Amino acid sequence: MSDRDRRSGVTGGSGAGHGGGAGTEGARPDDARRHNRTAVLRRLHLGGPCTRAVLAGELGLNRSTIKAVVDGLAESGFVSERLPARRSGAGRPSLLVLPRPRSAVALAVDIRVDRVSMALVGLGGENLGRLSWRLRAPAREPREVLTRVIESAGMLAEELDTAVVAAGVSVPGLVRRADGLVRESPHLGWSDVALGERLSAGLRIPVTVANDAELGALAEHHRGVARGAADLVFVVGDVGVGGGVISGGRALRGAGGYPGELGHMVVRPDGRRCHCGCRGCWETEIGEAALLRALDLAPGTPRGELVAELRELGAKPAAALTRLAEFTDWLALGLVNVVTMFAPEVVVLGDLLTALPQPVLGTVADRVRERSMVSRAIGHTRVVRSALGTEAQLVGAAELAFDPVLVAASGV
Amino acid sequence: MSDRDRRSGVTGGSGAGHGGGAGTEGARPDDARRHNRTAVLRRLHLGGPCTRAVLAGELGLNRSTIKAVVDGLAESGFVSERLPARRSGAGRPSLLVLPRPRSAVALAVDIRVDRVSMALVGLGGENLGRLSWRLRAPAREPREVLTRVIESAGMLAEELDTAVVAAGVSVPGLVRRADGLVRESPHLGWSDVALGERLSAGLRIPVTVANDAELGALAEHHRGVARGAADLVFVVGDVGVGGGVISGGRALRGAGGYPGELGHMVVRPDGRRCHCGCRGCWETEIGEAALLRALDLAPGTPRGELVAELRELGAKPAAALTRLAEFTDWLALGLVNVVTMFAPEVVVLGDLLTALPQPVLGTVADRVRERSMVSRAIGHTRVVRSALGTEAQLVGAAELAFDPVLVAASGV
Repeated sequence: MSDRDRRSGVTGGSGAGHGGGAGTEGARPDDARRHNRTAVLRRLHLGGPCTRAVLAGELGLNRSTIKAVVDGLAESGFVSERLPARRSGAGRPSLLVLPRPRSAVALAVDIRVDRVSMALVGLGGENLGRLSWRLRAPAREPREVLTRVIESAGMLAEELDTAVVAAGVSVPGLVRRADGLVRESPHLGWSDVALGERLSAGLRIPVTVANDAELGALAEHHRGVARGAADLVFVVGDVGVGGGVISGGRALRGAGGYPGELGHMVVRPDGRRCHCGCRGCWETEIGEAALLRALDLAPGTPRGELVAELRELGAKPAAALTRLAEFTDWLALGLVNVVTMFAPEVVVLGDLLTALPQPVLGTVADRVRERSMVSRAIGHTRVVRSALGTEAQLVGAAELAFDPVLVAASGV
Repeated sequence: MSDRDRRSGVTGGSGAGHGGGAGTEGARPDDARRHNRTAVLRRLHLGGPCTRAVLAGELGLNRSTIKAVVDGLAESGFVSERLPARRSGAGRPSLLVLPRPRSAVALAVDIRVDRVSMALVGLGGENLGRLSWRLRAPAREPREVLTRVIESAGMLAEELDTAVVAAGVSVPGLVRRADGLVRESPHLGWSDVALGERLSAGLRIPVTVANDAELGALAEHHRGVARGAADLVFVVGDVGVGGGVISGGRALRGAGGYPGELGHMVVRPDGRRCHCGCRGCWETEIGEAALLRALDLAPGTPRGELVAELRELGAKPAAALTRLAEFTDWLALGLVNVVTMFAPEVVVLGDLLTALPQPVLGTVADRVRERSMVSRAIGHTRVVRSALGTEAQLVGAAELAFDPVLVAASGV
């Protein structure tokens, strides 16, 4: 874009000069402007830098609308523009639009049974800085965790010389979405902790709290191997087992905003007793404790040792299938049920489950293919490993925080 | 409304005179008008006659907007108005607005394993006429069923001297929503039947086809015991077992528009072999065949005899619990899983399951209460009997047909 163009640009353009744009039909010009700003910002945040021409094509907006929106976002400081490194074709090159990471920074917090991780994430998804600490009783008390999260957030922000606009928090448990009440987190030993309200008061920014598996699903949907899939299930195997469902592009939640607990589906009615009151929950049969049992490792064996053992088994397919035969059965049975009940196009296995030997995962995928009539009907559900590793919850928590930020930014 | 009022009314009112109305913020006047027309029509269709004042209150519209919308709908023939029978309070009485059943008539078709039922349903949900016939091989061939449905629809319409504007069809099986392809209906013995397209061509009206359990859920949501619940699961026990899920007020579907198949969730891994390829599906353990086994009745015993036996057991609580102990276990286990995975506020049991003795249903509800941590978190999922009986699918099919009709009517 030349200086002349820039000067003549419609900045923050309201009025009748706007093109239609997806979803804006029938909206007032101001709504159209806001809608378009959010759409462009979200595209840049999730998809990374791209040219104005690509923005126009992907969002179905005409060039003059894109110009007006991008100029407006640049003026507000959310994006910058530059000439692309390589020019392609003749004519004026389309300017590359880049999100400016420090124009909106979110705090992501991942509270696990044994560790708390925090990150400051900039617009565009860049990790600007992070820290984590091990969690052991009694430091696992809500008050201790809250205090340290609030202090650490302040430190991180100061270190990076940035302000934080919103926070997203991942918790392994039943979370009420509206106010971030942790109703029950058996593995943390928390019940009825007003986490959202207390963090929001301490951090003085909007805080959204969600279930860890739900955030894993969100991460896979936006930035993981299930990117672009509207219907997916994320299954996280850690100390506990959880599942997050995205259906029609939206996180599935039930009454009171609580998502389901896939890890407490009963798969083995005569199985072990679970802390939830049932026998043979999926969690009881495929959680960390079940893996340790299958591999004859003592309860409490460090995670690193367990993962090393699994990796070693990866080189011995026959041994892997034999030693993990029972584990494989229950993992497969649960997945068949999940696919049959939610009809996802892809199931992503996260965390500890990504360390399973390939033959085990192959067997599981085959079982789903053979045994789920729903999988057959929809042309077969893919079962894949997460590539986000233990970062999935942190990535999801950042997206949880960014969602309202992207909308609010459109009104700036 | 006096004649003077009627003459001076804004008919089909477009322009700037409209009040806001829920969900219309930022929309153009024409959109607001259409939105309000659909909202009023849907309220009258689902909720029955009510006064203008009630409409205004429920829909958050001001009186002049309601007047304009109702006048417009009256002019298009969709509603009539009359003074309420009883006057309450002083001042001018609010006119009662009634849907006119014959202003929009939908065809509802319920194809079951052993019977096809059809009904013409008027705006407001009134059943204007119906017929049904028993289905036995070879009349169960898709071509036979299609021909008879098309002929019967013509007969019904002629008899009632009415035109039909759309049709909804219920099928026990996996249905692709977009085009009404029946991908697989094991109990009908159908696979890849282009039911939607063929019926639409034969009837010359828009036809929507859906899974029977999904339509049961829709019926319970709109006109049944779960009315007003945004998160519910409907479980239908017939020859097969199915489940329909409404989540956040919307029917839950997965990839390709296929809903899940709750009846093929495995609840008993060492159970009987199911036609789907698994062992111990919920359907295998709580379907009609399982009930017959539990009661020592021969396979193929007529449904009436089975229901009579169940009703008799209803008078003998102890005997009911003993004889149906195993059946109760599997019903409860499946329900615990369903509640744990979908977090509904209510589960509605339909069809054959409504005939179960009360002590069995009580036990099942208790188990859900005790064993599902999700049920505990959301303040306890209710487990209730459907009051729609075998009509649920027909009611749901009518609503399926009406949905686009109500939207289209707003543009008339």
